[in-house]
Amino acid sequence: MLNYVPDLDRVFQALADPGRRLMVERLSQGPASVSELGMPLDMSLAAVLQHVQVLEASGLIRSQKAGRTRTCSINPVVLRSAEDWIADRRTMVERRLDRLGEYLAQTADMPDPGWATGPGETTNEPKEQQ
Amino acid sequence: MLNYVPDLDRVFQALADPGRRLMVERLSQGPASVSELGMPLDMSLAAVLQHVQVLEASGLIRSQKAGRTRTCSINPVVLRSAEDWIADRRTMVERRLDRLGEYLAQTADMPDPGWATGPGETTNEPKEQQ
Repeated sequence: MLNYVPDLDRVFQALADPGRRLMVERLSQGPASVSELGMPLDMSLAAVLQHVQVLEASGLIRSQKAGRTRTCSINPVVLRSAEDWIADRRTMVERRLDRLGEYLAQTADMPDPGWATGPGETTNEPKEQQ
Repeated sequence: MLNYVPDLDRVFQALADPGRRLMVERLSQGPASVSELGMPLDMSLAAVLQHVQVLEASGLIRSQKAGRTRTCSINPVVLRSAEDWIADRRTMVERRLDRLGEYLAQTADMPDPGWATGPGETTNEPKEQQ
């Protein structure tokens, strides 16, 4: 229902960890081995590999083994799907707030019905508007 | 380190649940009460409230109690911060891939050194390029 895409659970979950975001950050600059990804992180190689697996399961990254080295690279399509989900909602909110702003500006331009004052005018009477 | 913003842990964690994304979806259309948010979800009001609390702790939504009704509304600023984090990485990846594409196109325009074939050309010989 309502744009529910199963993968987004895993994508946002993968991005909810600062270490994994650091890995995504590093991979956005180019492919890297698992040990390179672990370098700035104070954790065991096993822990790094676990994070890599979470990222790979989400689809955010892909990895390939050549000899004894596993090289990871980012998948911008999955990154974009998460970005789009958020952007669509954010745009909807901002449009709604814009319409509300326009409505309030229009009502402010209307002739003063007597019980309300326009913006910028000062009055000692309590305002009815919120 | 590297754009680490503490709140993003909570924001992405909050977005990692389909029920909470449904609530964000609903709130992007306008404010709603907790019970309205729970309507499309098959869960107790206590469970709905717990999800609302996770969303509120992340900063994605705000809530206000008037009488016995708690009304929630979305905070587009926090939505945007998550969107921007992803967009910045995605842009970086795409620029890098564009540069790589340009480089490959340039090398394809160079005189054939004999051991490589340009794109579009067919050959029965195995390619050295990847």
